[in-house]
Amino acid sequence: MVYVDLNGDTGESFGRWQMTGEEALLSEITSCSLACGFHAGDPAVMRRTVKRAAAAGVSIGAHPGYPDLQGFGRRNMALTPEEVYDMVLYQLGALEAFCRVERVPLRHVKAHGALYNTGAADLETARAVCRAAADFQADLLVYGLSGSCWIRAAEETGLKPVSEVFADRRYHADGTLVARSEKGAVIERVEDVVRQAEQMVFSGEVTAVDGSAASVKADTICIHGDGADAAAFAGKLRSALEQHGVSIQAPGGFS
Amino acid sequence: MVYVDLNGDTGESFGRWQMTGEEALLSEITSCSLACGFHAGDPAVMRRTVKRAAAAGVSIGAHPGYPDLQGFGRRNMALTPEEVYDMVLYQLGALEAFCRVERVPLRHVKAHGALYNTGAADLETARAVCRAAADFQADLLVYGLSGSCWIRAAEETGLKPVSEVFADRRYHADGTLVARSEKGAVIERVEDVVRQAEQMVFSGEVTAVDGSAASVKADTICIHGDGADAAAFAGKLRSALEQHGVSIQAPGGFS
Amino acid sequence: MVYVDLNGDTGESFGRWQMTGEEALLSEITSCSLACGFHAGDPAVMRRTVKRAAAAGVSIGAHPGYPDLQGFGRRNMALTPEEVYDMVLYQLGALEAFCRVERVPLRHVKAHGALYNTGAADLETARAVCRAAADFQADLLVYGLSGSCWIRAAEETGLKPVSEVFADRRYHADGTLVARSEKGAVIERVEDVVRQAEQMVFSGEVTAVDGSAASVKADTICIHGDGADAAAFAGKLRSALEQHGVSIQAPGGFS
Amino acid sequence: MVYVDLNGDTGESFGRWQMTGEEALLSEITSCSLACGFHAGDPAVMRRTVKRAAAAGVSIGAHPGYPDLQGFGRRNMALTPEEVYDMVLYQLGALEAFCRVERVPLRHVKAHGALYNTGAADLETARAVCRAAADFQADLLVYGLSGSCWIRAAEETGLKPVSEVFADRRYHADGTLVARSEKGAVIERVEDVVRQAEQMVFSGEVTAVDGSAASVKADTICIHGDGADAAAFAGKLRSALEQHGVSIQAPGGFS
Repeated sequence: MVYVDLNGDTGESFGRWQMTGEEALLSEITSCSLACGFHAGDPAVMRRTVKRAAAAGVSIGAHPGYPDLQGFGRRNMALTPEEVYDMVLYQLGALEAFCRVERVPLRHVKAHGALYNTGAADLETARAVCRAAADFQADLLVYGLSGSCWIRAAEETGLKPVSEVFADRRYHADGTLVARSEKGAVIERVEDVVRQAEQMVFSGEVTAVDGSAASVKADTICIHGDGADAAAFAGKLRSALEQHGVSIQAPGGFS
Repeated sequence: MVYVDLNGDTGESFGRWQMTGEEALLSEITSCSLACGFHAGDPAVMRRTVKRAAAAGVSIGAHPGYPDLQGFGRRNMALTPEEVYDMVLYQLGALEAFCRVERVPLRHVKAHGALYNTGAADLETARAVCRAAADFQADLLVYGLSGSCWIRAAEETGLKPVSEVFADRRYHADGTLVARSEKGAVIERVEDVVRQAEQMVFSGEVTAVDGSAASVKADTICIHGDGADAAAFAGKLRSALEQHGVSIQAPGGFS
Repeated sequence: MVYVDLNGDTGESFGRWQMTGEEALLSEITSCSLACGFHAGDPAVMRRTVKRAAAAGVSIGAHPGYPDLQGFGRRNMALTPEEVYDMVLYQLGALEAFCRVERVPLRHVKAHGALYNTGAADLETARAVCRAAADFQADLLVYGLSGSCWIRAAEETGLKPVSEVFADRRYHADGTLVARSEKGAVIERVEDVVRQAEQMVFSGEVTAVDGSAASVKADTICIHGDGADAAAFAGKLRSALEQHGVSIQAPGGFS
Repeated sequence: MVYVDLNGDTGESFGRWQMTGEEALLSEITSCSLACGFHAGDPAVMRRTVKRAAAAGVSIGAHPGYPDLQGFGRRNMALTPEEVYDMVLYQLGALEAFCRVERVPLRHVKAHGALYNTGAADLETARAVCRAAADFQADLLVYGLSGSCWIRAAEETGLKPVSEVFADRRYHADGTLVARSEKGAVIERVEDVVRQAEQMVFSGEVTAVDGSAASVKADTICIHGDGADAAAFAGKLRSALEQHGVSIQAPGGFS
């Protein structure tokens, strides 16, 4: 049996500013990463989103980010590993409180935005996040870009890595993503996205922009996009994969 | 044997702005309430302060406050009970993460500043804080003004209240504090403060501004002031009480 | 000739969280109040919104609020008049910088949310806002609830008040608004809203909930609601008033 | 006659966290750069500091920084030039409001912390700051590291640059500063600092770490350090320079 997880970002509302469509998304994915108040999310949003995810049977992870609401955590910040450790530990604790009250486990950590990108290439940053996670809860899974520093850092700290792939993004031959700022970085047609997802899941490879085959490990597929669009896309991908005999489920057998 | 706890506020630095004297204070008190990042404190300050308190053998509690760094949590904010619940739960989780990493228990919760004052008089606010505490950790102690809504709310939610008195503040006949804005609200002379502390600890009474005896329960005495002054004052109060045979220790037999 | 201004709130996006429909709204109203970064708005949003308002020929005012992004400035905060003065002056300056760069005048100030409501009933708060406005720019107009402390405070500080009415809200006999939390506080049917607007503009009265006629001065009508709905409503109200010969224009003859 | 300005950072308190010694510093320097609320400072601090600087006859400039209170604006943030422009314009406007009310001119802009360092080496960032300054007030001076991108960007945007030198920092042969993280980057002995200041002021050169003479233009000398220390150091430097016939005054003949 082939397994894969579909993960999506949730809890990205803040105060009056509500993201719509997260409930629809939760009905299509198997794990979700929740914003913890630094780049998005607030205590009320966190409580509500944990409750929704629990009700939908979706595995819950923390989505810690840089302290930058205006930039939505997408602007890189030059933090020391110690600052990253402290900031991630704080966010893990805050989110876990809401999980605890809803009697649902916190299952993984996935860095958000610029912190995710920095940690993929910078081992010190990835280690800082993983050490915070390991010190906080020894059985947390670490979601990270397949083949990146996240995987190595997770293994070094004794945590189980979950290799993430992006079905709608083009790859370089070395397994890194083509930057969004480059032309053709994002695959637009749904059928092409599904085809790449299937390739990654079944063959452990993705056709890179230079035509070569890059190795990837597809433990989880990231569902991009906001609200209704993301849910519709997730639904199509899920159906296509299930028709090919793939079992869609959260890592670790939770959902 | 007569017991009393001496509690002080700690972790009130933020980023570059460092409060001095907290280490000296930690050597004189038996429990401390740590800021959780909303009115003061940041992840680095919290980690450092938990470590210091643990090293000093001082019992640790959370000091959640309104989200108002500029106002230091001292400006009242009109929050709904649900907003208070969420905001306190978030702060409890964040602080507990640092306690967990340092392998030291979180022992109590004491609302900070305007939230403390509001909850003393408004049962709904006090209940919201206590429900968050009870849902988060069933054995948390609740520090609150002796005779106030905090005590009732703690009992209603199944938490053990710890009645707090202020040795350097004058009281009304009904057991409420004379507002700081009123003349003579604060007792200045150390010997007068010590005398009032002894009266409260030994007799369960305090002489109110109208000359009557107000009933108080002195489970813990709040050490006011910042840094070096607070430490010096705590040391004098501690010595005086110990000379009269009082055992200074954290509630619940921790320290 | 009878004149009235239609005013709406704008610039209420923040970072990633974008309010839609503000451009449509700007095509229907004659003055707008722009968030200044404390309860909503950020520097990028402010620049873009000032540019849009200038392009639409809509008179621009500042919409200062409490420093509470999560609460959108709708939660009352216990600030001293001096704190209000400083906070409003800061926000006025920040917004005026964007007006200056776009070569369009800053014409009015209207307090936002909880600050508006507090100032309507509390003369000290209203005075603090008006003093900041007068010290900053002596010809600023002050928008405020008809008959409230805003009008008196503006006059006391030498600023010209602009009396505001709410076409879709019910009034008490004393000219104050029925609280939104009360049943029937908001008029739902558009035709009823238009009728009340006409009554206020032509007769200077509004039928209060007790059936009596409350006096109001309708210099400007507040357009409630977000985005597309607000624009559609503003368009209907504008057409109806224009058909009755009312000239819709910003106060002071700007637009 | 040889002229030089002594400039210092001020307005770096925030809420409860008060920096001491700024009044003493203001009595020794001739221009000051005021924090504008993003990395330090709040509306009350800004009003008070503008008033103090005006009373001391010290020329006032804006000290805009990254939106990072916890990091005190010292952590680099990856902002686009447009984001820098908007953020600086906002801060200039906010500070100018307090200057306006105190009837004292805003005279210069000097980027703070990480923004200063980034702009010294990155022309796009320096240009964004200078364009905001030029669009806001055409006669603003731009303080920037002698020989850096700040000088070129100021000239390109039609603003007058003020070349800044650091009397207590060692230089590389190319006129850049030795990073603080390197050993010997900071000159500790006051007499050595004074000697380097005199060399820079009189000869337009500084002895670099490799023994060569680096060219510098000493329009203004930055007074490092906080509070009392900074004031004492400024006083010594001022006396020494004045004894050698240097006139200490703000650029542009203000003070």
